[in-house]
Amino acid sequence: MSGPAALSGVMPTLGTMRPDDTAAATGRGTFPGLITREKEPLNLEFPFPTLEAPLVPTNRFYIRSHFPIPQLDTTSWRLHIGGEVREELNISYDELQNMPSKTVTATLECAGNGRARLTPKAKGLLWEQGAVGNAEWTGVPLSALLARAGIKAEAVEVIFEGADQGEIKEEPKSPGVIHFARSLPLAKANQGEVLVVYLMNGKPLSPEHGFPVRLVVPGWYGMASVKWLHKITVSATPFEGYWQTIEYAYWRREHGQPALTAITEMQVKAEIARPALHEVIPIGQPYRIFGAAWTGESEVTCVDVSTDNGSTWQPAELLDASTPFAWRMWEMTWTPHAPGRYTLMARATDRAGHTQPTEHTPDRRTYMINRISAVEVTAQ
Amino acid sequence: MSGPAALSGVMPTLGTMRPDDTAAATGRGTFPGLITREKEPLNLEFPFPTLEAPLVPTNRFYIRSHFPIPQLDTTSWRLHIGGEVREELNISYDELQNMPSKTVTATLECAGNGRARLTPKAKGLLWEQGAVGNAEWTGVPLSALLARAGIKAEAVEVIFEGADQGEIKEEPKSPGVIHFARSLPLAKANQGEVLVVYLMNGKPLSPEHGFPVRLVVPGWYGMASVKWLHKITVSATPFEGYWQTIEYAYWRREHGQPALTAITEMQVKAEIARPALHEVIPIGQPYRIFGAAWTGESEVTCVDVSTDNGSTWQPAELLDASTPFAWRMWEMTWTPHAPGRYTLMARATDRAGHTQPTEHTPDRRTYMINRISAVEVTAQ
Repeated sequence: MSGPAALSGVMPTLGTMRPDDTAAATGRGTFPGLITREKEPLNLEFPFPTLEAPLVPTNRFYIRSHFPIPQLDTTSWRLHIGGEVREELNISYDELQNMPSKTVTATLECAGNGRARLTPKAKGLLWEQGAVGNAEWTGVPLSALLARAGIKAEAVEVIFEGADQGEIKEEPKSPGVIHFARSLPLAKANQGEVLVVYLMNGKPLSPEHGFPVRLVVPGWYGMASVKWLHKITVSATPFEGYWQTIEYAYWRREHGQPALTAITEMQVKAEIARPALHEVIPIGQPYRIFGAAWTGESEVTCVDVSTDNGSTWQPAELLDASTPFAWRMWEMTWTPHAPGRYTLMARATDRAGHTQPTEHTPDRRTYMINRISAVEVTAQ
Repeated sequence: MSGPAALSGVMPTLGTMRPDDTAAATGRGTFPGLITREKEPLNLEFPFPTLEAPLVPTNRFYIRSHFPIPQLDTTSWRLHIGGEVREELNISYDELQNMPSKTVTATLECAGNGRARLTPKAKGLLWEQGAVGNAEWTGVPLSALLARAGIKAEAVEVIFEGADQGEIKEEPKSPGVIHFARSLPLAKANQGEVLVVYLMNGKPLSPEHGFPVRLVVPGWYGMASVKWLHKITVSATPFEGYWQTIEYAYWRREHGQPALTAITEMQVKAEIARPALHEVIPIGQPYRIFGAAWTGESEVTCVDVSTDNGSTWQPAELLDASTPFAWRMWEMTWTPHAPGRYTLMARATDRAGHTQPTEHTPDRRTYMINRISAVEVTAQ
């Protein structure tokens, strides 16, 4: 491990529980396997064409931050639960670890993943394909914590606040310094898969991924999985915070009028990992087209692939069993027989019957980008 | 009247009912008494230091537009009422005029009035004092129209759409072309003062003020008084449209979290019309300090004036009887005895006990600007 001095606020509490990849994931070290989109705050992308297996190693998992990474320690950290509850709670790190735990494998995708492909050039971080990853998350079901506090009858939402804070200085500005915060409707908050997490892939969270504790909301875009979680507030009214309204919101049509609505569930999507854009493929030989496909609260049931720019489609093979909330690897063997340029596409469909659109609607602003994308290759 | 050709879509239906100031108020003519803030769309400010009487003449009333002024005629215009109603209605201009009417004198202020005084320089139209006016509005109570359509039990809000439309191309963008639209909670929509208006100061509306029909919502900032009204939709859910959320919204604190909230009621405010900024005032002679004061759904009960930069305050005299929703003129006689610079301030208080703050909170973004402002003058 390198740079322990820089981690002095965190190190004393970690002992031997730190994952091996701490040095790579400190935010002060380097991230050789990730593409830098922004250094301050730290925003790093997984190079999707390097996808190998369903679980993405922690040090290769994409990082999305809105503010500087807070330096927290497990000794002073508390999780405060308040608002419309019968009893306010202040839970310590040790107390949390002594509660019954649960492990869920879940895919998290940033709501702006794929933004680099939009034309005209979008505002915001220009993610390519790789602001997405799949990991094993271990923690306490949120529902157990809410039950301990006792939800009052008037509650409708639960607000989650991270310890990360700062000021948004571009328009529309934040009202001074604010914490990152997001809410869930009570029904989703009480679903068994929503966890207050302290382990990622079996090791304590790294600072970039929310140490000591984060929320993980399987099925929803990443913005719901609040990192550096320190405050849970049960509310009797819908929350209209900065990241519910200004950011991570889209235009839902209601009576024909566009109505600004907080983004929730992930949209069904297949991505091609290989071939990579502009890859040269030998003719007359079988080539393994390979990728991943995921969706929100449903499950992917089928991935179709086109090698002729969408004119014809063939089903790909889904490689692993379907696990709720986790992506599925898929492959299809293709043998190009004539030299030339080919446009490859993949399209996923889920059990709810949702599939991918061919165009990105402006109603989604620069979020929820799941239109079928094309990979151009050359066979020779 | 000048430019009848340009008005051909409107002229045939107007006959002798047009007000004398049509030429000045066509958007194609000139507005000699108003300050141009923007030409396209048309945004013109009343020069507040020229205030004379409680009623502002129509051709001197401030103009706020978001899109080009729609050219409508009373023959084809219909007011559609739909959504959660028992019977959809399509009301013609003649039909509207045959319903029982009501006249309300009401002050309308743009929610961004005073923005030019904010530091640092704000984004948006930089209004000085004069994006405010007071006029007589005649029309049909909205409650009568809603009663005719029959509101279903599940209704919570009423959405008003104008015929004006376009695209917002700055960030955050609109989702393509949209109409100006705003909602009222059902309780406010059913208040007797809310009118579907066709006369302003006793004459048919001019194109800039919403011809043929507009909404007027006394007590609320101007954005609620939708011009060129053509569609009313009763809704079972709160409306989250562009001008409820992106624009004309502020940060209300809820559990300590800033929550984006649609702007509603006007905030209590006194403005000094005379002396004007940097006016030179003779010493030893009585000078009449004069201005107006208004508030939202309450009424102004007191205006205090300071001539020493807020150190001491004296009550001003309120000149006219209090009328709900209309501003009040006020005056105070002041005799400066020593030469030098003086900083004058005025501060209104309403029956609800609200008064003006000394600072503008960033929670209000660049709206609801009612902090006590200062007028510097020189006595010699």
